[in-house]
This record gives sequence, C-alpha cells and structure tokens, in this order.
Amino acid sequence: MESLEVGKILGEGVGEVQEYIDVCDYAVGLSRMFAGHVFPSERKGHALLEQWNPLGVVGVITAFNFPVAVYGWNSAIAMVCGNCMLWKGAPSTPLTSVAITKTLMAKDERLPLVSFTGSTQVGHKVSMMVQERFGKFLLELGGNNAIIVNEDADLDMVVRASVFACAGTAGQRCTTTRRLILHKSVYDEVVSRLVKAYGQLRIGDPCEADTLYGPLHSTAAVEAYKNAIEEAIKQGGKVECGGKVIDRPGNFVEPTIISGLSHDAKIVQTETFVPIVYILKFEVLDEAIRWNNEVKQGLSSSIFTKDLGNIFQWIGPKGSDCGIINVNIPTNGAEIGGAFGGEKHTGGGRESGSDAWKQYMRRSTITINYSKELPLAQGIKFE
Amino acid sequence: MESLEVGKILGEGVGEVQEYIDVCDYAVGLSRMFAGHVFPSERKGHALLEQWNPLGVVGVITAFNFPVAVYGWNSAIAMVCGNCMLWKGAPSTPLTSVAITKTLMAKDERLPLVSFTGSTQVGHKVSMMVQERFGKFLLELGGNNAIIVNEDADLDMVVRASVFACAGTAGQRCTTTRRLILHKSVYDEVVSRLVKAYGQLRIGDPCEADTLYGPLHSTAAVEAYKNAIEEAIKQGGKVECGGKVIDRPGNFVEPTIISGLSHDAKIVQTETFVPIVYILKFEVLDEAIRWNNEVKQGLSSSIFTKDLGNIFQWIGPKGSDCGIINVNIPTNGAEIGGAFGGEKHTGGGRESGSDAWKQYMRRSTITINYSKELPLAQGIKFE
Amino acid sequence: MESLEVGKILGEGVGEVQEYIDVCDYAVGLSRMFAGHVFPSERKGHALLEQWNPLGVVGVITAFNFPVAVYGWNSAIAMVCGNCMLWKGAPSTPLTSVAITKTLMAKDERLPLVSFTGSTQVGHKVSMMVQERFGKFLLELGGNNAIIVNEDADLDMVVRASVFACAGTAGQRCTTTRRLILHKSVYDEVVSRLVKAYGQLRIGDPCEADTLYGPLHSTAAVEAYKNAIEEAIKQGGKVECGGKVIDRPGNFVEPTIISGLSHDAKIVQTETFVPIVYILKFEVLDEAIRWNNEVKQGLSSSIFTKDLGNIFQWIGPKGSDCGIINVNIPTNGAEIGGAFGGEKHTGGGRESGSDAWKQYMRRSTITINYSKELPLAQGIKFE
Amino acid sequence: MESLEVGKILGEGVGEVQEYIDVCDYAVGLSRMFAGHVFPSERKGHALLEQWNPLGVVGVITAFNFPVAVYGWNSAIAMVCGNCMLWKGAPSTPLTSVAITKTLMAKDERLPLVSFTGSTQVGHKVSMMVQERFGKFLLELGGNNAIIVNEDADLDMVVRASVFACAGTAGQRCTTTRRLILHKSVYDEVVSRLVKAYGQLRIGDPCEADTLYGPLHSTAAVEAYKNAIEEAIKQGGKVECGGKVIDRPGNFVEPTIISGLSHDAKIVQTETFVPIVYILKFEVLDEAIRWNNEVKQGLSSSIFTKDLGNIFQWIGPKGSDCGIINVNIPTNGAEIGGAFGGEKHTGGGRESGSDAWKQYMRRSTITINYSKELPLAQGIKFE
Repeated sequence: MESLEVGKILGEGVGEVQEYIDVCDYAVGLSRMFAGHVFPSERKGHALLEQWNPLGVVGVITAFNFPVAVYGWNSAIAMVCGNCMLWKGAPSTPLTSVAITKTLMAKDERLPLVSFTGSTQVGHKVSMMVQERFGKFLLELGGNNAIIVNEDADLDMVVRASVFACAGTAGQRCTTTRRLILHKSVYDEVVSRLVKAYGQLRIGDPCEADTLYGPLHSTAAVEAYKNAIEEAIKQGGKVECGGKVIDRPGNFVEPTIISGLSHDAKIVQTETFVPIVYILKFEVLDEAIRWNNEVKQGLSSSIFTKDLGNIFQWIGPKGSDCGIINVNIPTNGAEIGGAFGGEKHTGGGRESGSDAWKQYMRRSTITINYSKELPLAQGIKFE
Repeated sequence: MESLEVGKILGEGVGEVQEYIDVCDYAVGLSRMFAGHVFPSERKGHALLEQWNPLGVVGVITAFNFPVAVYGWNSAIAMVCGNCMLWKGAPSTPLTSVAITKTLMAKDERLPLVSFTGSTQVGHKVSMMVQERFGKFLLELGGNNAIIVNEDADLDMVVRASVFACAGTAGQRCTTTRRLILHKSVYDEVVSRLVKAYGQLRIGDPCEADTLYGPLHSTAAVEAYKNAIEEAIKQGGKVECGGKVIDRPGNFVEPTIISGLSHDAKIVQTETFVPIVYILKFEVLDEAIRWNNEVKQGLSSSIFTKDLGNIFQWIGPKGSDCGIINVNIPTNGAEIGGAFGGEKHTGGGRESGSDAWKQYMRRSTITINYSKELPLAQGIKFE
Repeated sequence: MESLEVGKILGEGVGEVQEYIDVCDYAVGLSRMFAGHVFPSERKGHALLEQWNPLGVVGVITAFNFPVAVYGWNSAIAMVCGNCMLWKGAPSTPLTSVAITKTLMAKDERLPLVSFTGSTQVGHKVSMMVQERFGKFLLELGGNNAIIVNEDADLDMVVRASVFACAGTAGQRCTTTRRLILHKSVYDEVVSRLVKAYGQLRIGDPCEADTLYGPLHSTAAVEAYKNAIEEAIKQGGKVECGGKVIDRPGNFVEPTIISGLSHDAKIVQTETFVPIVYILKFEVLDEAIRWNNEVKQGLSSSIFTKDLGNIFQWIGPKGSDCGIINVNIPTNGAEIGGAFGGEKHTGGGRESGSDAWKQYMRRSTITINYSKELPLAQGIKFE
Repeated sequence: MESLEVGKILGEGVGEVQEYIDVCDYAVGLSRMFAGHVFPSERKGHALLEQWNPLGVVGVITAFNFPVAVYGWNSAIAMVCGNCMLWKGAPSTPLTSVAITKTLMAKDERLPLVSFTGSTQVGHKVSMMVQERFGKFLLELGGNNAIIVNEDADLDMVVRASVFACAGTAGQRCTTTRRLILHKSVYDEVVSRLVKAYGQLRIGDPCEADTLYGPLHSTAAVEAYKNAIEEAIKQGGKVECGGKVIDRPGNFVEPTIISGLSHDAKIVQTETFVPIVYILKFEVLDEAIRWNNEVKQGLSSSIFTKDLGNIFQWIGPKGSDCGIINVNIPTNGAEIGGAFGGEKHTGGGRESGSDAWKQYMRRSTITINYSKELPLAQGIKFE
C-alpha cells in the first residue's frame, strides 16, 4: 500500500511497518518503566515526589513520506502515557494542509500538545499558533543533512553509505543526505565512484522486489526538482550525473549529483525534498564542521573517519550541532532506543526512545506534608 | 539590599541569598552527574550514545521579586552545563522591559536559549519572538494559585499556611495563593480565623527583624491593588478585611481578603500581583479541583486533607493540572531538588532540580559504527 | 500442568503463565533501554562512560512453588542482557538439591552469577559457596511476612486481603502472610470474621475452576504442617480454626489460624511453608512495626491504615525493613515494573523491574583519552 | 602527615586530601538527587513507589595506602544517605587486622553493611563472615592490573603513563600497573625507553616537593619485594632495571622492571603490593586481552591504541573484564563521577560516583492502595 500511495520501494515499505511493530514493543516495555522520582526531602515530615501525568488529547499531524512510522512513534508512546490521540495524515496539497491545520488543531486549547512532522515552513506556522495559546508542540521538520568525508575515511563505506543516503527513498527522507563534504585528497575518487554507482541503481516500479529507486511522491515534487537543478546551474553548479526528469509514467526523476557550488550558495543552503546531492570540497576539518553547522536546520549529520580525536570533536560541544550525529554510517537510519529529532529549524522535538516520552506528559512536582506540623518562616505565629 | 530595593522583609531576603548558595552546592554536585546514556545498539558493531552538549550563550531575563534566586538558579545550572550567560535584571518599568527585551535577546540568533521569568504578558511576547526564529525558551510566568481546604483538613495548619501564602512577600510571589477554595463545612471558621490572623500581622519597615509584612514594590503595584479592589467590589465581592492603601511613606497597602465572588468572576480569574486573596465556597471535591484548574495559569496548587484517596486523586491525572502540587503545605516554598515551574500560561519551563538542566543543553543522539562493515538495506551492492 | 504437578488452583496457574508473558514484554522493551551513562569528564580531552556488559553464563536455580514465573523473571532479563543461562528446576527432595547444587553450579567459576530461589537454609549454603570463589549471587529466600492492622483500618479490606494472603496457594508463597498483627481495638472483630471466612473457602481439586484452596506440594510439607501445629500449641497457642490434615487423597491440610502466642515465640519467628497464620495483638503502632522487623527475614510486609503519618512512617527509615512494603494491600502480589526481593535472611536479591537487570551484568567504568596529551601528576617529565 | 606516616610523596598526599574535598562536594549535590522512582502502577487506585532508605550503621574498614580518600568516599556518601558510620583504620600488622575485624564488625548484626578496602585475603574472610549472617558487604580488594600496548599506540604516551602507573606511590596503589603487555613490534623500544625513564626518577624524602618516588610503607613490604624478585628470577625472569633494596633509612627499594616471564607464570599471576612490573610480549590483540583477563582480580586495565574497532572490542562484552577500563591512559587515576571498583577477586564493590550510593541504602518497593477497593484473584468473595 505504501509503494502504491507514496511510491516507496518494497523493502522500505516493509521496513517502515516493522518499525511500527518495534516501537509498539518498545512502548509496552516503557509502560512499566517511565518513572517519576522520589527525591529526598530536606524538610522533616515531608515527601518530595515527581510524577508524570498524561496530557489528555494529543494532536498528531504526520508527513507524507513516513505515513506509518511517524504515526506509530507518536501513537504508541502517547497512548502508553495515557493520552488520547487526534490524528491527521498528510494531504497531497500543502496549502490545504496549512488551512486545515490552522482551524483543526493548532488553535484548539483542548489539545495540550500538537506533534507535527513535515516541512519547516508549515511547522513554523503551526508552532506559532500553538505558542500563541501557550500550548506544547513537538516539531519534526526538515533537515539539510551533510556527510563529511575525512581524508582517512574508508572509501568503500563512504560510497555505499552515500548512495543509500542521497538517493534512497528518492531523496524524500528528512534524514536524506543533501550535502557531501569531501576532503580534497579523496574528492576525485569519491565523486567518480559515486557517479559510477548511481549508474547502477535499478530504477523502476516500487512494487517490484529488486527495484532500488522509485518515483517522487507528486508532480509538485517533480517541479521542485526541475527548479532546483536550474537554480543550481545558474549559481555555478555542474551536474555530475542525473539532472533530468525520466520519460515514463509516474513522477520519476534521475538521482542527481551536483558539484562546483560554494558551501554558502543559496541553493546549497536550501532543503529541496528531492534526490539531489551537492558536493563540496574542504581542506581542514574545522572548516567542514563549520559548513555542516551553517545551514538553518540541524537534524542529521555524519562523519567518516578513523581518528579518535576527530570523532570526539565531532560529537562534542565544538562538533556537529545536529540532533543526530553519526560516525561511519550515513545520515539516515535510526534506532528505536535513541531519541530522534533535531535542533534549530528542525524544530527541537524528539521522538521514539530515551526520554522522548516526557514530551507526552506533564510533570508534577509534588510535596506532601505528612507530619502534624507546618514548618514556616520563623516567628510567624497566630492565635 | 533586597529589603531596601524590593521591600522584602529581612528573613525573606536572607532566605533568598541562602537559596542561591544551596543551588550552587547542588550545581557542583550536578556537574559530575548529569549523564547522557550508552544505549544497547541493535546493530552489530555499532555504539549508540546520547550526549548532552552545552547550548553556547544562554540569555536570562529575571523578575523584580526574586532578584537573587532566579538569577542563581539559571546561572548555576547553565554554567556547570558549560554555557556562557547574558543576564538582564528587571527594570521597574515593564514597557521598557518589552522594548529592550525585544531588541536585546529574544531576536538574537546567537542566544539558543532565552530564559524569562516575569509576567505572562511579556513572557508571551518573548516566546513568540524566540519561536519565530526557532530558538528555545524557558518561561517562568505568573500563577493564579489556589489552596483547596477539604472538610477533613487540619484547620490550624490551614490558617497558618494561608496567611503565609496569601500575604507573605506582600503577595508578590509567583506562587502566592490568590484563591482559597473552602469546603462549605469549614468556610465560616476559616474565614473568621483568617481575618483575626491578618489583624495580627506586624506591618512595617522590612529591614527590621520582627516585621512580617512590608511594602509593595512600586507605585504601579499600588495602582493595580486599588483597581483590583474596586473591580472585585463591582463584581459582587465583599471585603472581609483590608482593602485600603496605608497612609505612610513607601508603597504600603493592607493585606486583603475578599469573599462572595463567583469562581469564574473575571477578577478571580486574573492574577493581580498584590496581597489580595479571593475566598470561594465549594460542596464537592471534584468541583474544587475543577475550579483550581480553570484559570489560565498552572503554576502552584495545594490541598489540605487527611484522606489518602483525595491525595492521590489530587496528584494524579484527574487532579491539579499545575506544575507544583502540594498537600498540607501552602502554594509557595519549593525545594532545590525538585523541578520548579508550571503549565499552561505559566509557560511550561522548569528550573532548579530533577532534570531541569536538560533545558540548558542540546541532546545529541550519536551512533558510531566501529566495525569495518556497513549494514544497509538488503540488496544494495555497488562495485 | 502446574495444577497437576504443584497443586496450584487453576486461576493461580494461569496467572503465573501470564506473568511470564508480561515479563517477556517488559524485557523486550528493556532491551532497548537499559543504559549506561556518559558522564561529563573533568579532564580535558577525556570521555567518561559507564557501560553494562553481560556476565556470560548465568546459573539459575528455581523453587517448586513458582516453577514458571521464577524461571521467567530470570531468563527474560538475563537473556536480553546478553547472557546464556543454565537452569535447574526444583527437585522434590531438598537434600538432593543441596548435593546437586553444590557440585553443579555454586562452585563452578564459569558461572559468574548464581541466581537462587528457595529456602533460606539452602540459599545460605549456596551463597557461601559462591562467595568462597568471589562469585555473584542473587538470592530470593524465605519470608516471615506480617500484616499490621491499625485501629483505623478498613476491616472489609483487611478480611478479604488476609484470607487471600494467608491461605492462598495453600500458604506456599514466599510472600504468604504468616503473622497478623492486630490492634487491640479491632482484634476480636477481625479474628471472628476471619474464622468465618476460612469456613467458606472452597477446598478441592485444583484443576476445577471454582476451587479456591488446593493441596500442599508434598508429604514432607504435610509433616511440617503437623509439627508446626503441635509446636504452636506447646508454646501456648490456641487453634482458632483449622489445624488438621484432611482425610482425602493428595496432601490436603486445613488452612489454620492460631492465636495466643507471644510475638517472640520461637514458632512465630519461624517460617513454616504451610497455611498457618499466627495472630498477635498490639497496643501502639511503634510496637507493631518493631515486631514486623524482629524476624530474621525481610521480604514482604503490609499495613492497613488510613492515616497519612502512619503510612509515611511505615515506608520510611523507621518503618518496615522489608524489601516489599505495602499499604492497604496484602503481602503477596507484585508488579512487573517494581523490584521484587527482600532484605536480611531473604538474601538481598532483586528480580523483575526497576534496575534489577544490573545484577545480570557487569559494570565497566570507562575512560577514553582521545586527545594527544596525557595529563599526569605535575612535575613528571621524562625524555 | 600522610607523607610522614604512609611515605607518600607530597603531591600525592595533597591530591588525596583534595579528593576528599571533591567527594564531599559531590555528596552534597547527591543529597538532593538520589532518587527512588514513581512507577506507573498497573492496578487501578494503586501507587507503585521505590524509596531508598538508609541502612543504619555502616562499618568501614580502610586500607593503609589511601587513609584519607577511602574513608572520605565511604563517609561522605554513607552519611548523606542518612547512615551512621563506624570506622576502623588500617593497622600495620595484618594479622591483628584479621583478629580485630572478626570480632569488631564482620560478625556484628547491628552493622547491615561492612565496607572493606584492603587485601583480597582479608577481604575474603570478612565477606564470608558477613555473608554467614546475611549481611551486606562492599569489597575493594586487590588488582593485578595490566596495560596493553598495541602496535599502533602513541609510545610517548605509553612511556609516561607506564612510569606513573608502575612506579608511582611506590607501586602501592590497588590500581598500580603490575603487568605491561607489549605488542612484539614495539616491545624493544618501549622496554628501553622505560628503563631510561626509571633511571631518571627522583627518589628521596617524600616530604620534599620534587621527590617523585618515596619509600615502601613497612619492612614487611620490603620483605615481600625481595621475595618477589627472587621468585621471579627463579621462574625465568630477567631484571631489566632495579631489583635491589636501597641502602638508606626508611623502607626504600628500587622501582623494578622484569621481563622474560610467561604470561601464566605464578609470580606474574600474583599481586605483590610493591613497585615491580612484569613485561610480556604478545602477537595478536585477542591474546593480550585474554592475558589481561586471566588473573584472579578484575580491578583496572588499560589499552593504548588509535584504532576504533580495538577500542570498542576492549570496552565491550569480549574485552576487558575489569571494573575500570581505560583507553590511552594508565590503570590508575579515577574520577569522582564514575563508579570505582572491580570484579572477581577484587570483590565486586563500587564506590564514589554513578549509583554507588545504592550500596549504602536499602531499597523499598512500595505499593499503596489508595482506593476503597481491593483487587484480588477473581471469585474470592466472603461475607
């Protein structure tokens, strides 16, 4: 069904359903574990507790590209937390989405939390409307994700990872790699191997088992693809491979590699939700990390290196500013047990593992005086 | 100095300084404890970590009524988290505050987090400006806090707690009790004992050790007090005691008890930051809890009861919707180790204990592939 | 099968199987959550991690009375922790048990952990043998569990809870109530209502759905029952009801209530694993708590009261010294999410929820220096 | 005072006092944080809590070599947990120690916990006596710690780290490196550089600021040193440097390096608490890890390598089996925030950071039924 509706290849569709099953398993376990705290009280005869209570009704608005998993993450966790859920799937027309969202959920005070997965543009509007009424929001918006390939990287890994991350799901994951930042010493080799690998991608009907690359979701996406290619060329880009709409029924376009653009070119700084990756060349790692961080969004990021110092720089205070930081694996793919989400224009929300469940609850700091006395400021006595 | 500038009585000023010291102790311990996680990875040869990294520069805007403690909570925690801090104390004129805030911190992208303590009105503006740029905010805004006195309450406790909570700090705490919700069976006794106790409050120079009740912070506050009294009477309220400005230098007003208003009277639903408490009469506990929750803010709340079932209802999903929930102690007063803050129009932020530190950091979900292999979707092989 | 082999009534057998299923659900969730920590390191260029690694092979020795659940708790948790398991079920003859245990598991260095559920006597021997070789052990041994009934208790609850806790599973739970400590003001009423309720227990074939009380596990248990009755009478006890072996095939004995013994009578201080409960009379709560704590074991304990102060005394430093502390529910019955086990001669182990999984793992405190420098004591320099 | 009594060099004495101060800071913070849990109960009208209560009196027996820090770790944590403490410092004569220990603390039922730091031999006896009475023990016993130097190690680091770890504190730390396991490709260089570095160690009065190496603690230790040298030579060892008692007042002996012994030579497998290190040569990393793990104790261990795969093998299930696992730093030195202690014959205890505090408390799993109903097995109804 996913292959038919979204155009996902079979393996990815199956994987997404499996993810929902896994997150249900996770949530069942969680239902007996998410714990408030019993803190030691400093006051005689007092107990200090922290209890997590459900929010009530949680509004969930999901994106087109993961119709099963995003619903699954939200519903499984929200429900074991004790909430009801009001769900709105993705329409095909984003304008309608904004309109309906506006009236339906964002402004409704009966929804203490609105969880929104989708574009930064719509997410921004939703969050402003929810904050206007002091509601809570959980945003999973876009990413302009990069892979940094250091001079000591394992290039076999890099090539396999990049094809999967740049062209997989036809570039329509929020974690799709949109920028490849290559050290100058490996630049030529990586580009030529990537171009060769792109040539071997089996393009076709997503319902067939050996298809690796399917269509875009909509004609609007095809338009966005064409515009981005045109814009990239205008800004000085060189199409290394791909770049054209494919002449067959459905919204098929060629997976595309573009080089020659500056790291701060406008099109490079823009997330276009299509299978185009921009290739940049760097000389010093600090520069590459700076480029990784200079885009508006902060979702996912990867480095390929063997050096321990580089790795700890990358994951530390002066490294990647993304919510998801990978080493020797691509930007996409995530585990149930970790928190999923990103910083800056990605919206700051976290889903799935770790303590993401706290977003679906309200924290009550509780003090119980079980003594017969009331400790007050000294000197206060009344008859 | 606090007594001179804010008008706090001596004991409260000393207490506030002690709180800063305590929170520093807490933060030193915390600096060796706040922990990310090492999750078990589901993938062979992978490590799944969660690391907390500092945000960078944290903007802190504090309120007039706790000039030491609010700064202390923020700075101690923010700094052991590895952040720098830009601090703006409270001006006396709120309009200036809005203006400066606007230009100074809320819009500045170099401040990933803006922590604001103050009025709901200004906090709302700050949060909208910060969200406009997808920044983080930590809001500690107003409260319209209630004490529920059940029929089985210990009335000695209730009277002592209420005087402290309604008239202490001249009603200028965010956790000041502004509504007393009394069971009909104890209503008359509590009111008459409270009126008597109010008559015994030693009003005077806050720098003198035996003063229990000092002046308001500003002439603007005196105006707000007068308007509220007038409004309450217009809406059907009866002044049980107090109600007048005191004729002496400084901004002294009488601590005031007003009865006879409906639970949903407009003035009852409004937080006026002065020493006025509205007394309501209820018949059934569910009704009292509903009234507790029907105001815009959700900061602090108390119940006085001896019944176990009532207590667990009160602290659970169908109880108080505030961030701070007390049993047999008043709405004000908090411990370092618990999280401090509230829901709804109080802004949702949490300071001090528990995992409030997480708001001062960014969460990095890290996956490291340390094997020589890259597990990808099946069937993807490139030469 | 449990009903046939152990003699459990049908409902209890079904319940035990359900518990295994539940703990499996719990363990699947846990497998993505049990987390080591990433602590902030105080040293520049260092990372401080805590990782939990599996122990290897875990030896598990289980008792006759919960053949499914005890195995389930151990195996589900041990296996998601990454361990193998060597399991030994309960033999019918305890002497054989000691012998086999000795040679099989307790002394074998290849089993870093031996988890033993059974009698204090055998558990003691096992633990000494394991400690002799510095192994780890997890002991779930006996309990001499008490219910305290305070003067303000809900006596309907007390009667229903006591019958279930004293006579359920024919008194063969480690959490069976063996002592009922009644306030003098409710003593007569509770005893007479209990005797009446005992008279209504449907005794019969455990495989039949409406049987509430089945046989003992073995003829040895029948002997122990007879000896205990005799001993109790010798020490001054009065049989309020029961006290006789039932004349029908199988090891049936009457559920028995004995009063009149001193709290420190030898037989009262002894756990006999049969359906006999001793009734004691107290005057002051402190005295009842002291009696609760004066037995060798420290497994489970309950109080029935409505008073908040009593409850917090009971669960705090000066209350029950047991691992399981209940309020207004009997001593038996436990939730998956909590840690199950007891103190003192009960052995100190914990199973099932909370962080009981830590016992199945070894903690590695890891420091990684990823800088190019080595911080050492000042002054140490070598060429 | 430490320099005078124990013979520690000045810097180490000062460092140990600083450690006590640091652990006090840590404990003050901890006192507001160590938290039980509020688990979600599966039963209607029930609350499931986990509370940590103090043990009562904690017996602490400390070793001669860290008279301040070991007492500090225990007392600071034990006391903020709410315990009293009975402390016994180290005598100079171990036999007396056993005798006094026996009668004083190990057998006394009023001490629920005995924390013992010292030799494996005495610790074993203490633990057996405590387990005999089902008490708790926290053992910090010996270590036979190794550093593995892989072929890709930074040898400058290795040399500096090894001198500090092998000869520092005159070899009298429980974390002193006693075995250096060198890859054959770096063997010759490391040995020759170490011998040179040992020659530069300033030996002298520990109270003088520039002394790097002081005396042994007692004449008994000097005897142990002489015997070990003799034994090592007998088993085939070659003294690379040192090996002799120094002819000056006090118990001075030369720091010593011995090569040529088999990894399983009896003397190599023995912890002698003196400044002798045995050097072993390995070919494959798995072999080196196996040797690291084959000794009886499991306290501390280090690897020097730059390879990510090696590091994660080392810290994972198939790596070091010690409680402390280091990478690119030596076996000694630890941070307050981590848990300190070891596995196997090191005793299994953990002190200082993480959740080591749990050992000083007893866990109470608490269920409160706050409803008016009692959920029991179906079908049980009594009139």
